[in-house]
Amino acid sequence: MSYLRRPIDEMAAYTPGEQPAEGERVVKLNTNENPYPPSPRVLETLRALDPSRLRRYPNPMADKVRDLVAGLFGVGRENVVCANGSDELLSLVMRAFVGEGDAVAWPTPTYSLYPVLARVQAAEAVEVPTREDFSVAVEALAAARAKALLLCNPNAPTGVLTPPDAVDALAARFNGVVVVDEAYVDFADAHCMGLATRRPNVLVLRTLSKSYSLAGLRFGYAVGPADLIEGLVKVKDSYNCDAVSIELAAAALADPAWMQTNADRIRAERTRLSERLAALGFAVTPSQANFLLARVPAGGDGRPWYEALKARGILVRYWNLPRLADRLRITVGTPQENDALLAALQTLRKEVTP
Amino acid sequence: MSYLRRPIDEMAAYTPGEQPAEGERVVKLNTNENPYPPSPRVLETLRALDPSRLRRYPNPMADKVRDLVAGLFGVGRENVVCANGSDELLSLVMRAFVGEGDAVAWPTPTYSLYPVLARVQAAEAVEVPTREDFSVAVEALAAARAKALLLCNPNAPTGVLTPPDAVDALAARFNGVVVVDEAYVDFADAHCMGLATRRPNVLVLRTLSKSYSLAGLRFGYAVGPADLIEGLVKVKDSYNCDAVSIELAAAALADPAWMQTNADRIRAERTRLSERLAALGFAVTPSQANFLLARVPAGGDGRPWYEALKARGILVRYWNLPRLADRLRITVGTPQENDALLAALQTLRKEVTP
Repeated sequence: MSYLRRPIDEMAAYTPGEQPAEGERVVKLNTNENPYPPSPRVLETLRALDPSRLRRYPNPMADKVRDLVAGLFGVGRENVVCANGSDELLSLVMRAFVGEGDAVAWPTPTYSLYPVLARVQAAEAVEVPTREDFSVAVEALAAARAKALLLCNPNAPTGVLTPPDAVDALAARFNGVVVVDEAYVDFADAHCMGLATRRPNVLVLRTLSKSYSLAGLRFGYAVGPADLIEGLVKVKDSYNCDAVSIELAAAALADPAWMQTNADRIRAERTRLSERLAALGFAVTPSQANFLLARVPAGGDGRPWYEALKARGILVRYWNLPRLADRLRITVGTPQENDALLAALQTLRKEVTP
Repeated sequence: MSYLRRPIDEMAAYTPGEQPAEGERVVKLNTNENPYPPSPRVLETLRALDPSRLRRYPNPMADKVRDLVAGLFGVGRENVVCANGSDELLSLVMRAFVGEGDAVAWPTPTYSLYPVLARVQAAEAVEVPTREDFSVAVEALAAARAKALLLCNPNAPTGVLTPPDAVDALAARFNGVVVVDEAYVDFADAHCMGLATRRPNVLVLRTLSKSYSLAGLRFGYAVGPADLIEGLVKVKDSYNCDAVSIELAAAALADPAWMQTNADRIRAERTRLSERLAALGFAVTPSQANFLLARVPAGGDGRPWYEALKARGILVRYWNLPRLADRLRITVGTPQENDALLAALQTLRKEVTP
């Protein structure tokens, strides 16, 4: 007999991407981190932090950040809630909108955390396959009977963007809450923030982990109608964001130009890396994110490529899952990192392919 | 029609203690913060933090801290999980052990977050009143039919400690998981950490918010049997602790002597404050925590005292709840802060009491 709830007892834990041990030198293209540092203002704020902030409880709503976000998008403070990364926001969404036995929908393939969160909540998963080219089947998703719909946009691990007008149409037809997880949107041509206050059932999630180069900080926020935001606030821990991360997040968000410059460099490098991979025989899905999903040459399996790269100190992501097992997901790194990858792939092409 | 789950829609949000606005000067004795700063090693670590930690995802299990905790208590790494304060641990406990409609028990009065967490989980609350002197009714609690039992020990807001042998007997008889929330235990004469690995159903929660002077950091950990810890790990966000807080928590835990010195000063001051309050006509419950629950003189209501103190820039905690409405909960501050409180109470005694 176990003390655990049955769904928890029976489930497997989520597997995060590998993190190299301290001091280990690797080319790390496996967890979609930004290869460029955050705004210098972030480090300045860290070094100058008022020590008394450590001793006292933080502002429970991270109002300093809420107000910055509200200013960036022309919404009210009541339309914003902050959390420990998009992951905590997704967990809050599940707990606020999806009860035991309720359904929650998403396109597949997508962020592999979604099924884990549904399992924890003992919710029913409604999985709607994307089309052959990984574009989201909007009509089928809109027809799903579910309390919430999780739309990673651009999607992971495919990089495919569902255009805002299609998301708008989806939200108009869908019967529950549409959660647009825009973790990668600063690398895309369009975003859905405009829907977050225009539609009564759209929440947009953002994170500082990718475009703002702050994966270590664990900071994200949701924007949406005040009543939905209030529901998330009820579920969250009262002091969910720590005092240091609030100050550092505020410093980062006050310097969006720094983020934009880095995003532009990554987009340019994404184009170059994509072309070079194609020249090596990889079939690359056009991406609007800071990573590429690339089918390995000759219809082979991705695993030997993943393992051979790892043996050479280059980490990429591989999943032994339907529609993904013949591919690698490669984070766009610096030109030097990408060149190291390309050089390794050039060599491996002779070894791995039959 | 609301998109929210019914229990979320209908519930009230948890009300954290007031946090003064930035720059506001108050004597803050309302949220049980430590009046002394954390170990100087914490600030040194902050100032010297490797900037690349901000850009990369943190270690998902905060292993550096786990190993320190394991060393402090002679347990294995697999017996420890870290989180954003005890609050996140309590939330994980609910999600791992208590399903919708399941029961969860606690003595009353206790930490006012527990009912909120039960509500979020759509769980049934089994509330077992403490005795007249606020001592926990161990027999009645042991007989409760519930998946989990939340025992804040020393209890908040009473300061009463249930001795470890009584908790041991309780765990032996109780049919579910006994969660011993030891947020205040460094100010007490005894603790229950020894039960965390000896009993199959005991989890002990600790936080750095109180004795380690790090309420702003949001860092706590749970110790217990490996299978229960694994259940909490499955439920938690994969990167729940941020990179800065992991480094700072490790620095604090590496200097327990600093914490102990501060705890000793607070205990001494607790005795003095308690005696002085008694001399002013307050009935003070003997406390093993860093706060005192004090009944106001002449059987009056606590609210006018709370409000008059607030008007003088002194914050204490007041609840309009059964058995608490005639009392104030007062955090033990520095001697200077406590003197300011005592002087104000001396004056108020003439104004407030009939």
